[in-house]
Amino acid sequence: MVIMQGKITVPTLILDRSKCIDNIERMAEKAKRNNVIFRPHFKTHQSSGIGRWFRQAGVEKITVSSLRMAEYFANDHWLDITVAFPVNLLEIDLINRLAAYIQLNLLVEGVESLQFLERHLRQRVQLFVKVDVGTHRTGVDIDDHVRLERIVERIANSRNAGFAGFLAHAGHTYRERNETGVRAIQDNYLPKLRALGDKFFGPFPDALISIGDTPSCSLLDTFPGAGEIRPGNFVFYDVMQANIGSCGVNDIAVVLACPVVAVHPERQEIVVYGGGVHFSKDRSLRPDGTEDYGWMVEWTAQGWQLPEGDRPFLRALSQEHGIVKAGKPWIDTVKPGDILGFLPIHSCMTADVMKSFRTLDGEHIEMMRF
Amino acid sequence: MVIMQGKITVPTLILDRSKCIDNIERMAEKAKRNNVIFRPHFKTHQSSGIGRWFRQAGVEKITVSSLRMAEYFANDHWLDITVAFPVNLLEIDLINRLAAYIQLNLLVEGVESLQFLERHLRQRVQLFVKVDVGTHRTGVDIDDHVRLERIVERIANSRNAGFAGFLAHAGHTYRERNETGVRAIQDNYLPKLRALGDKFFGPFPDALISIGDTPSCSLLDTFPGAGEIRPGNFVFYDVMQANIGSCGVNDIAVVLACPVVAVHPERQEIVVYGGGVHFSKDRSLRPDGTEDYGWMVEWTAQGWQLPEGDRPFLRALSQEHGIVKAGKPWIDTVKPGDILGFLPIHSCMTADVMKSFRTLDGEHIEMMRF
Repeated sequence: MVIMQGKITVPTLILDRSKCIDNIERMAEKAKRNNVIFRPHFKTHQSSGIGRWFRQAGVEKITVSSLRMAEYFANDHWLDITVAFPVNLLEIDLINRLAAYIQLNLLVEGVESLQFLERHLRQRVQLFVKVDVGTHRTGVDIDDHVRLERIVERIANSRNAGFAGFLAHAGHTYRERNETGVRAIQDNYLPKLRALGDKFFGPFPDALISIGDTPSCSLLDTFPGAGEIRPGNFVFYDVMQANIGSCGVNDIAVVLACPVVAVHPERQEIVVYGGGVHFSKDRSLRPDGTEDYGWMVEWTAQGWQLPEGDRPFLRALSQEHGIVKAGKPWIDTVKPGDILGFLPIHSCMTADVMKSFRTLDGEHIEMMRF
Repeated sequence: MVIMQGKITVPTLILDRSKCIDNIERMAEKAKRNNVIFRPHFKTHQSSGIGRWFRQAGVEKITVSSLRMAEYFANDHWLDITVAFPVNLLEIDLINRLAAYIQLNLLVEGVESLQFLERHLRQRVQLFVKVDVGTHRTGVDIDDHVRLERIVERIANSRNAGFAGFLAHAGHTYRERNETGVRAIQDNYLPKLRALGDKFFGPFPDALISIGDTPSCSLLDTFPGAGEIRPGNFVFYDVMQANIGSCGVNDIAVVLACPVVAVHPERQEIVVYGGGVHFSKDRSLRPDGTEDYGWMVEWTAQGWQLPEGDRPFLRALSQEHGIVKAGKPWIDTVKPGDILGFLPIHSCMTADVMKSFRTLDGEHIEMMRF
């Protein structure tokens, strides 16, 4: 608690640098052990400062979720970037600008987008075909070999595009609650992706299978047949990942520090300055089915820890207000002017709205803005 | 549609200036008719540019939700500002800085905060006592006259603080679905607030009752006993307000324009570049209980309109992806590179994450940032 006093006056996203670097190094080592490329997704931290910690861990290739994010990191000398999002044709000028000086890897999942790229690409890019392995968000159905073949052939004949391989995001692992469930998902789709590789990679010696959501990369030890992994959230982890089992609560590297502005003992609630514009509105469900927008921690000399016993939690958020459900002893000891800390439900979204971090040792780290 | 082509390449929040000004003028006239101060809440637009449209409608006093927002608008010459949020004691330096050159009105709901202010205020401020009229988010219970009296007396004896009156936010109107429900809420609490005024305002000729959520201010014609109204969301409205009945769909002044990046006829879905970092994650429920993150509109020569028949809607959002459920004819005609527009569920949160607007006639309007 000492570290906080006199410095924090508004909602502030606190980053435990050593937990964060541990998370990075653990994943980098797992990738090395598996002999797969580690191409972490930078959409979680969106920060050139934190990007450098990855560079120190030997990372050279990255993933981002938008072309503007690619531009931001290209400006910080990341020279091999995959935009893991169906290519946005309207940004063709930015694509050509970026592809002139970095290795730019894009995602396609239909012939229409490919036709457009063929007509408008002035620089060479690499194209992954996005494959839907069961999440049903984007991508070509993994069993639709006819459509996949049509796209691969078309890429093979494109003047300014090379075939990079098949890329999948098994986002449905987020609905699992343990290693067994996550493993079952990988055991279902990864052999199918390998079969696709066997069928189509012959003429493309550099083509590879790219996978890697945070639950799979955290809970599983091997990724047979994959050529690269792209986890993102693991850099911070959060309540959602702790609920899945991807991390321990002590691996979570960010906490949102919020000033207390009111205490209501009669309804066992504390009001904090910290709402939807600070946490975002992602939520988790408690065992009794009620909503939970963040787990309260207590400050320690080194940082924070989860309290013993009945933990206070954020039961509701409005634009700037957070409503904390808190029993004893909290409700009797907390007062306006105190600062409470909360583990975010979904750290990617919380970081995105906060736009900066403050490390436990007081360094200010900015995120990209446009 | 013509207005969009060749200009918009990424998710962009489009503002219909004439709808917005109509919303402002309609509310300003209603306040005038009722002889109440119109002190609009600027947390929805957070923009000095849009603030000037209010000035043109005769507005001189405003509401904000944070001290930093007060500072932003004070810098644009708004000189009478209420921060409608329990006072954040940790920002006492900013409070003193602001109160030196504007009329700053703050909210208290407990004696602890008042004691702190007495010790640390170096400039005069006005204090509203926040009253809980049934929302149970913040404030002193409206029936707890003992506690209310203790706070009013303490303010009366404070050296640097004046008693401004009682302030309430009937946020539980957001759970209603028509005028009758919203009226029942006002009919319940407003007489109680008047009784509080009768009991406590004697020695304070300038004290007043401040109310005014958007549903009440939109659906009701009179506010008997209130001295001022503070609606905010009405400046743009949104799907949530249309569902309550506060506005017609045609009064909604903002639409988020999103590039199409993939089309999946086999599951009747369109993928747009436009996710939780653009819309925020506020959602509405459809009649069948499924989630809805935005209503699709169709572009017209003048702006946009709701399509006839089965309307496409956003069934899910992830960080950058929006998944649109769309039947015929949409699924057959929409293609990558098109731009689709969506009415946001909660415009305050959407504006907050987007941080700027583009008017239909192409003007770029910035919001506050820190």
